[in-house]
Amino acid sequence: MSAASAARRTNPGLDIVVLEATAHVAYGLCGLPYYLSGVVGSADDLFAYPMERFTQDRRIDVRTAAVATELDSTERRVAFRQSGRTHRLSYSSVVVTAGAAPIPLVVPAVAADRTFTVRTLNEAIALRRLLDAGMVRSALVVGAGYIGLEMAEALAARGCSVTVVERLGQVLPNLDPEPAAVVEEHVRQRVDLRLGADATSADLPGFDLAVVSVGVRPVATLAGDAGAETGPAGALVVDAGMRTSLPGVWAAGDCVAPLHRVTGQPAYVPLGTTANKTGRVAGTVAAGGSARFDGIVGTAVVKVFDLEVARTGLTLAEGRAAGLPALATDVVHRSRAKYYPGGSALHVRLVHGRAGRLLGAQMVGGEGAALRIDVLATALHAGMTVSELASLDLAYAPPYSPVYDPILFAAEAAVRQMGPA
Amino acid sequence: MSAASAARRTNPGLDIVVLEATAHVAYGLCGLPYYLSGVVGSADDLFAYPMERFTQDRRIDVRTAAVATELDSTERRVAFRQSGRTHRLSYSSVVVTAGAAPIPLVVPAVAADRTFTVRTLNEAIALRRLLDAGMVRSALVVGAGYIGLEMAEALAARGCSVTVVERLGQVLPNLDPEPAAVVEEHVRQRVDLRLGADATSADLPGFDLAVVSVGVRPVATLAGDAGAETGPAGALVVDAGMRTSLPGVWAAGDCVAPLHRVTGQPAYVPLGTTANKTGRVAGTVAAGGSARFDGIVGTAVVKVFDLEVARTGLTLAEGRAAGLPALATDVVHRSRAKYYPGGSALHVRLVHGRAGRLLGAQMVGGEGAALRIDVLATALHAGMTVSELASLDLAYAPPYSPVYDPILFAAEAAVRQMGPA
Repeated sequence: MSAASAARRTNPGLDIVVLEATAHVAYGLCGLPYYLSGVVGSADDLFAYPMERFTQDRRIDVRTAAVATELDSTERRVAFRQSGRTHRLSYSSVVVTAGAAPIPLVVPAVAADRTFTVRTLNEAIALRRLLDAGMVRSALVVGAGYIGLEMAEALAARGCSVTVVERLGQVLPNLDPEPAAVVEEHVRQRVDLRLGADATSADLPGFDLAVVSVGVRPVATLAGDAGAETGPAGALVVDAGMRTSLPGVWAAGDCVAPLHRVTGQPAYVPLGTTANKTGRVAGTVAAGGSARFDGIVGTAVVKVFDLEVARTGLTLAEGRAAGLPALATDVVHRSRAKYYPGGSALHVRLVHGRAGRLLGAQMVGGEGAALRIDVLATALHAGMTVSELASLDLAYAPPYSPVYDPILFAAEAAVRQMGPA
Repeated sequence: MSAASAARRTNPGLDIVVLEATAHVAYGLCGLPYYLSGVVGSADDLFAYPMERFTQDRRIDVRTAAVATELDSTERRVAFRQSGRTHRLSYSSVVVTAGAAPIPLVVPAVAADRTFTVRTLNEAIALRRLLDAGMVRSALVVGAGYIGLEMAEALAARGCSVTVVERLGQVLPNLDPEPAAVVEEHVRQRVDLRLGADATSADLPGFDLAVVSVGVRPVATLAGDAGAETGPAGALVVDAGMRTSLPGVWAAGDCVAPLHRVTGQPAYVPLGTTANKTGRVAGTVAAGGSARFDGIVGTAVVKVFDLEVARTGLTLAEGRAAGLPALATDVVHRSRAKYYPGGSALHVRLVHGRAGRLLGAQMVGGEGAALRIDVLATALHAGMTVSELASLDLAYAPPYSPVYDPILFAAEAAVRQMGPA
């Protein structure tokens, strides 16, 4: 819908058709855990706008329950299934925003109709009905990534006895093991966490419910089968104008791998904010306007119970996997002046090259990680060194930070670790 | 004490003497309003370290109640008064960290011994005794800058009936009038605020107490009288190594005017975090080590009752006063996803040049201004344009921000305001 709306702003005269596989458009997918926990009262609250905003105000022809099945980029035609029939549409420009699909997993401990992935609003509504009806006393969450831990928190908030099973030896595989260990301890105090465990094991006891959150894959088959180039994780490769390798075919959202500015290579990091931004660029350019998406730096944040967990750039493991001579500097510092109440410990890991170039950062703490990570994301965009980071004129007042903000404290530790130039 | 400690780290064999006019060293001056309000229980909590950390662990000869009176940079000698006598000390290197002194004002409505500036711990202790004794029902705060509003909040928290009198037509003269108006409305709901009013007027009724906070002046006479070059507001001009124009004389803290990176000129912005950093650089370099202070961008934040108020770079007024063709873009955006509870409206003003170069930012809101301003400070250090700002990969999760963070929302509005390139 970002793409369609941008196309309308760019060209008021265009015919714009949106094919949507489900019944709903433009809702906050990232809000589903909060709808399940009850923090968000009604599913209606999750919608960015009422449907009429798109269909009437923006004159977008939205077709729901319409599943695109084939793209012919030579004939510039799309086939789709709706109401049991196959239809065809000709286009001048097409934007593929097919998103991502959860990786499926059969969990023997839970009935198939009680196993959810919570990737769509429909699923979330069904799951919440079970919760509201008091039918879920025990819940199994498979996967301890962002979504898995958000779901564990939501289910625990509803009074469920929650078990989280993760195949790997740490929570949040997108973090390095050391910061992840801080999160792990926090999670262990709140739910039954089993790392290095197999959710498909027949030994696992039964649960009233399972949420499978073991990652997503880009839905790239439509454009991929038509010959569009794919890259990391099988996602569509695009340029800064969100053009695929096929003429007349743009792509955006969770099905593309945009440029990662730190590595200079395409990367698959499917997140809501990038999906929105790339959609806007794709819609603008596809409609004949001018816009560019300058890439990501891999920023992400998640609330895990009472912790803020954030990352940007590359982890130490990612840096080394990319062949960079990466080092890590770890500090723990207060989030506020020590005498001001309400502060907590903030764990900061900076990842940097041997000459000091900032490559990434991870932060875990009771407060102040989610917004502070953006300073590091900005520094990555600017290609700063840890020495430049240490020289930043950051805001100070006792209710908000110590005199030396944790970022400055970490940057100075990184400078010291590297020794004299 | 930052300078002395840095000197010790740089050279373990150095003789280091600190002359301190009061009885206390290394306490959090910025914490005084919170000590007065009772948020900080004891004055002891405000000390960074016990005195022994400096005198024993770091072997620093700290002389309290010792007032430096004369600096002879040719003979490399300092005179000081202590216990009614004048003493002299020879030095190889001297670091002047004399700080700033409040601008005095006689308030006819309040007795002189009930008029405070709250620039030292001693004063704060005396004032808190009056509050604790229940002797302050009505209080007059003169000046609606950072300190004045912090003091108004502290006194109101103690149950005082507070009147704030400000000579100018707005609160927080370091903000542009539009963001200041948001703060003004908030303050008016909590205390009796009188703008464009004269605290020296004989018409003003009596109060139990007055706090005068009409700004500070650098204490630069010691080095200035010895011939050191002074600049904005009469503060000492220093290079990146915190050297004054006199050989063997360094300076740091609230008595210097460091480089402002946005204007490229020295600026007087006396704040605690800069004082600490410049002290460390001065102590390091004066002791023979290597360090540099790369300047400020004018970042500041203050808590005003339930508002976070932050700025960085230049205001529109400052930009125009500096001869820059500055524009302002104002937006109001949510601090969190609209469906996530606890969010509030964040007012953002971006100040930028006609070609889009970011010159400054101001933010006022219920939450999220204090840490978000650091993103803008970082962008200023990097010399970014508003277009680059709009392309930042900032963190998104519903509890912490909307999909388009208020910074991105403001940057896009600024890009639109400038029109096609």
